[in-house]
Amino acid sequence: MSSAEALPEPEEPGTQAHASRVLLRFVEGLGETKVAAETRVPAGTTLFDAASWNGVAIDSTCGGHGTCKKCKVRVVSGSVPVSSVDSRAFGVEEIRDGWRLACRAEAHDDVVVHVPPLQTRPKAALAGVGRHVILRPAVQKRYLELEEPSLEDQRSDVERVLAAMDDLELRVPLEVARDLGRTLRAADFRVTAVICDEELIDVQPGDTSDRLYALAFDLGTTTVVANLLDLSTGVPLAVRSMLNKQQPFGADVISRISATMLDPDALATLRARAHETMDELAGEVCEHAEVAREEVYEIVVTGNVTMLQLALGIDPEPLSMAPFIIAARQLPPAHASDFGVSVHPRAPAVTFPALGAYVGGDIVAGLLATGVTLDRRIRLFIDVGTNSEIVLGSRDRVVATAAPAGPAFEAAQIRCGMRAAEGAIEGVTIADGGLSLQVIGDSEPLGMCGSGLVDAVAELVGAGLLDSTGRFVDDATAAAISPELASRFATIDKERVFVLAWRGNDPAASVFLSQRDVRELQFAKASIATGWNILTRELGVEVGDIAQVLLAGSFGSYLSAASAVKIGLVPKMALTRIVSAGNVAGEGAKIAALSIAERHASRAILEEVEYVELSGRTDFNDLFVDQLAFPS
Amino acid sequence: MSSAEALPEPEEPGTQAHASRVLLRFVEGLGETKVAAETRVPAGTTLFDAASWNGVAIDSTCGGHGTCKKCKVRVVSGSVPVSSVDSRAFGVEEIRDGWRLACRAEAHDDVVVHVPPLQTRPKAALAGVGRHVILRPAVQKRYLELEEPSLEDQRSDVERVLAAMDDLELRVPLEVARDLGRTLRAADFRVTAVICDEELIDVQPGDTSDRLYALAFDLGTTTVVANLLDLSTGVPLAVRSMLNKQQPFGADVISRISATMLDPDALATLRARAHETMDELAGEVCEHAEVAREEVYEIVVTGNVTMLQLALGIDPEPLSMAPFIIAARQLPPAHASDFGVSVHPRAPAVTFPALGAYVGGDIVAGLLATGVTLDRRIRLFIDVGTNSEIVLGSRDRVVATAAPAGPAFEAAQIRCGMRAAEGAIEGVTIADGGLSLQVIGDSEPLGMCGSGLVDAVAELVGAGLLDSTGRFVDDATAAAISPELASRFATIDKERVFVLAWRGNDPAASVFLSQRDVRELQFAKASIATGWNILTRELGVEVGDIAQVLLAGSFGSYLSAASAVKIGLVPKMALTRIVSAGNVAGEGAKIAALSIAERHASRAILEEVEYVELSGRTDFNDLFVDQLAFPS
Repeated sequence: MSSAEALPEPEEPGTQAHASRVLLRFVEGLGETKVAAETRVPAGTTLFDAASWNGVAIDSTCGGHGTCKKCKVRVVSGSVPVSSVDSRAFGVEEIRDGWRLACRAEAHDDVVVHVPPLQTRPKAALAGVGRHVILRPAVQKRYLELEEPSLEDQRSDVERVLAAMDDLELRVPLEVARDLGRTLRAADFRVTAVICDEELIDVQPGDTSDRLYALAFDLGTTTVVANLLDLSTGVPLAVRSMLNKQQPFGADVISRISATMLDPDALATLRARAHETMDELAGEVCEHAEVAREEVYEIVVTGNVTMLQLALGIDPEPLSMAPFIIAARQLPPAHASDFGVSVHPRAPAVTFPALGAYVGGDIVAGLLATGVTLDRRIRLFIDVGTNSEIVLGSRDRVVATAAPAGPAFEAAQIRCGMRAAEGAIEGVTIADGGLSLQVIGDSEPLGMCGSGLVDAVAELVGAGLLDSTGRFVDDATAAAISPELASRFATIDKERVFVLAWRGNDPAASVFLSQRDVRELQFAKASIATGWNILTRELGVEVGDIAQVLLAGSFGSYLSAASAVKIGLVPKMALTRIVSAGNVAGEGAKIAALSIAERHASRAILEEVEYVELSGRTDFNDLFVDQLAFPS
Repeated sequence: MSSAEALPEPEEPGTQAHASRVLLRFVEGLGETKVAAETRVPAGTTLFDAASWNGVAIDSTCGGHGTCKKCKVRVVSGSVPVSSVDSRAFGVEEIRDGWRLACRAEAHDDVVVHVPPLQTRPKAALAGVGRHVILRPAVQKRYLELEEPSLEDQRSDVERVLAAMDDLELRVPLEVARDLGRTLRAADFRVTAVICDEELIDVQPGDTSDRLYALAFDLGTTTVVANLLDLSTGVPLAVRSMLNKQQPFGADVISRISATMLDPDALATLRARAHETMDELAGEVCEHAEVAREEVYEIVVTGNVTMLQLALGIDPEPLSMAPFIIAARQLPPAHASDFGVSVHPRAPAVTFPALGAYVGGDIVAGLLATGVTLDRRIRLFIDVGTNSEIVLGSRDRVVATAAPAGPAFEAAQIRCGMRAAEGAIEGVTIADGGLSLQVIGDSEPLGMCGSGLVDAVAELVGAGLLDSTGRFVDDATAAAISPELASRFATIDKERVFVLAWRGNDPAASVFLSQRDVRELQFAKASIATGWNILTRELGVEVGDIAQVLLAGSFGSYLSAASAVKIGLVPKMALTRIVSAGNVAGEGAKIAALSIAERHASRAILEEVEYVELSGRTDFNDLFVDQLAFPS
C-alpha cells in the first residue's frame, strides 16, 4: 500500500470542488510522509508547474522541455499518464513504479507525488504579497567553448551551437543565423548563447553570461511603471514611473476609446504615446542601473485590455459597447519593439491574459502576485478605480467581474477633487465634534483625492451628519450634533455642501464636499458592493466566509480600511483582515519575468477564473439599490 | 493470427537495411491482404507521412495535428506506441486492437498497417518523375459564418474565429489580431480564414475560398524559375524563367562568394539582385494568370546553399573554403518578404534542407521529385554542372557527394563554348566518315554548348580520332580513318584543334574543339565518375547493381545518354536506363507546395541521406587518375 492512501480526503462537506480540478499533494523525505504542499490545479496541469507555483522546487536545467531529464518525481498514489519523454529517462520497471518527468507529467486525477531532494538549491525571491518565487526566468545565457569545424566535423554553424545545449530544443530565428558564421569565427568559437524561452535570440562573442536583464511594465491608464530586474539574482535594480502620455486624450479608458472612434488617426497617435512613455521609462531605469538597453532580453507588460490593445495598435472600439468584446484573451506573441521599447532587437514582450473587456491582464497579474487562486482561504480582491475589478474565491474556485464605478475615486467628477498630489486632503477624522485633515505634503489643502473623499463621507456618516440614504442632515440636526461642524454647512449654486477646509469666508473658494459628490461616491461604492455581492452568490458563499480583502492598485493603497467598511465599499470585518496590497499588477509582472513557471500559472488563471458579466444580469438593479445606502 | 505474419520477409541476403529504418506495409481491403505499399522509413516517421509519401491516401482534414481524428488506421502486426491523442479518438478496446491516429503514430518497429477505405477521394497531381502527389497543401482557406457576439457569448474575436476551426490548432500573429475586430464587424462575421501550416495568416471579408495560390521557385546560379500553382486544383498556372541578376558577379557560386569577400557591400547587393529576380518573376507569372500578388500565400524556394544564403543575407564565406561549413542544414523559418518577393505580407517562405555546402536544397528537392529515397531499386542521381552533385542509393540507404567538375559543362572555359542558346551546337554525330551537327534554332553554328561538347568528344573517341588518354590522333592516323574528318584537324596558337563547323577557311574563325577543351571535359567527367565510384564503395554495391541513372538539371536534359556512356560520365548500361529527369529541383519545389506530407518527406531526406565529403579522402586521387581515361 502506498503511504498516500492513508492520507485523509480533505474535501469538506459543502465545498464542492471545481469540476475540472484535481488535488495534488507533494511529499518529501524518505518516508514520503512530509507534505510539502497540497494544491488544487486545473486538470492537465503538469506536476512541474504545480510544484513550482506552490514553492516546491524540482530540479531542472532545460526549463521544462523534457530534455534535461532532471525533474524526476515519483507518483506514489493515483495515476499520471506516461508521456513520450518518460521512456527516454526511465526503464519500464521505473515507469511502472510511478517515476515520471514532472515537466511533461499531466495531472488528470488526484495524485500524491514524491519529490526527491534537490541536488542544488534554487535561488528564490520574495515578490507580490508574500509570494516565494523560485528564480527560473525565461531568459538564460550559456557560455560555450565550441570545437572548431573540420573536414571530419562538418556540422553546420547552427547545429554546432545547438549541440552544445542539447538539453534544450531551440528555435533559431533567421536574424541569428545570418550573423552566426561571422560571430563564431571572429570569437574563435567562444560565444555566449542568449536564450529566451524556446528561442535562441542571440549569440554574442566571448562570455557575457553575467549580464542578463528584463523589464517589467505596468501600463496603467494614468501611470506607467517600469521595473528593471537583474535576472541572475532576481533583484530589482531600478524602478521609475511617469504619467501615461496618452493623458491628453482623456483620463479614463472610455474617453481614450472614444478618441479613436472620432478620429481615424487617433489610434496611431495613442499607440505612439504609449510607446514613448514606455521607451522613456526603459531609458531611465537602464541609465540609472548602468545597464545597456541591448542587455535587456525580455519585457513583461501588464495593463488593462484597453491599454494593451491601444499600445499594440488593436482597434479598441468593440471594448466600449455591449457586448464588450476583446480581441483575444491571450494576445499573440509580441516583441519589445511592438511596444516601441528599444531593448535587444529580438527581445520578446510577454503579456498577461485577460478575463474580459474590463478584467484585464493587470488583474491577472494581481491575482498572480496575491496568490488568490492558490490560497485555501476565500479572499476578495478589489482594484478600485473608474472601472473596478472584483475577484472572489480560493484555490477551489474563483469568480471575477468588473463594476463600472465611475470617476468618483479618481476625483475627476468631484467638485473639489484632485489627484493624490501635494495639497490633496487624503484623510479626514471627525472626533469630539471637531474635524482634522491629513494633507499630502502637510501643505495648505487644495482639494481632496479619492481616499479623502471616502474618509470624509465615512466620517460624516459616522458623525450622523450624513444619513444612511446619503443626504446631508438639516441645519438643526447638525447643530444638535456639533455647532462647529454645523457651521461648515453652506449652499453653493443651490446645492448643500460641507466645507472641509475654509479659504477665507467664501465656501465656494474653499475645499468642500457637495451633495452631488456624495451621490457620486454612493453610486461608485454601490456598484462595487453589488459586484462582490453577486460574486458571493455565484460562488455560493456568505459575505461572512470571506477571510481577507485585498485592496489593489494605487488608490487601494491610500484608502483607509475603516472608512471603506464604514461606507460599505468592502464587507464588514476586522480591519486587520483588510489589506492594502499595493501595485500588485506591477508585482505580478515582475514575478512573470523571474519565473517561467509562474508565467504558466498566469495563463492557467485564465482557465481557473470564471468571468461574470454584470450588464446582462436581472438581479443587478435590485442589489444595486440595496447597496446605495450607507451601512448603519 | 494477423494476416501480416504470413507475408514473406522481403530482406534479400546482402542488402543490409539501414540501422535506423523500419519496414512498413500498408494493406487495404477487408481481408487486409492487398498490399497498397511497402516502404522502409526512418524510425520515428509517422504512419501518416509514410503512407502519404508512398501514395497511400489516409483521410485527414486537420493536416496531421491530431485533432480531426479522421486518420484512423489499425496496426495489424507489430506494435506502435500509443500517442496522447489516441485516447481522445478511441476506446481502450480499440487501442488494444491496434487502432491509432496515423498522424501521431510513430513507427519504431516493422509493422503492418490496415488503412480503411477513404470517405472522400483526395485530389492528386502527377509531378516530378512519375510521382503521384496527394494534394494537401500547407495553405488552406475556410469560409466561416460566425455567430455574432452577445452578452451571453462574449468570446474574444480570436477565440470565436478559432472555435469555428476546432480541428486545427492555430497560432494567430499579432498583425492578424490587429485587424480582426474591424474585419469581422465590417463583414457581418462572414469571413474567410487563410491558414498556412499552423498559422492563421489572414482573415478576409466574405468568401474568398476559391482563390488560393503558391509560388515555387528554383533559385539557380544561372537561371531562376518561378511556377505559379493553383492550390485548389494542383495545376501550374504559369511558369517563367530568367537569368539570375547576380550574373555580373560571376557565373559560378565561387565567384559570387569571392565577390562578398572582396567588397563588404557585395553581400547586400547580391541579396538585392536575387530579390529583384525573384520578385520580377513573381510579377510576371501572377500577371499572366490574372492572380493578385496578395492571393499568393506561400512560396517554396529551392536552390543551392550559396544561392539561398546569399538571398537571405547569410555570409557565404565559410562555404568557400575547407572545411566547407554551411550556416544551417535546415534554414530558419522565413517569409516571402525575406526573399524580397511581394506576395501576401505574411506568406511564409519554405526552403529545402541541405546535406552539405555543395549538396544543397536543390538536390534534396530533386530527390523528392525523383523518389530516390523511396524506391526499391538502386539509382544514381547526377546533377551535372560546375559543381556536380551525385546521389546513389535506394530506400534502404542513400549516400551523396559533390564533385567539383569545373566549368566544362557550362562551356565557360571552352574556347568555342557558349550557352545552350540559338546557334549552339547541341549534338554531334560522326557516321560513314562524315560529321553532322544539331544546332539550336537550326541556324548557323556560333559555338557549342555543354551537350555538344560531350557529343563531339564522345563521337571523336568512337571514331578513333581521340585516343583513350584524350589525345587527338596524329594526321596520319586520322587520314587512315577518314580523309574528310582528317581535314578538320588544324593548329591554332600551337594547339591542335578539330573544326566542327567551318567559317571560311580560317580555323580560328570557325567553331572548333581544342585539345585543352578535351582536357577540361576529361577532368570534369573524371571528377564526377570518381564521385559515383566512391559512392558505390560507400554503399557496398557494384556499378552493375545500379538500375537507373537520373540526369538532373537543365544540362542533364540536353545531354545524350549514349555520349555520356561513351565518355564514362555515367556507368555503362542500357541507354533506356539513363533518364533525363529535367528540372527536378523545380519539380520538388512544386511538390512541396502541393503537399505538406511531401514537405515532411524532404525534411526526412536530411536524416536519410549520408553526405560523403570527397576532399578529405585518401582514395580520391587514385580513383580520379583511373577515371581520366575514356572507356575503350
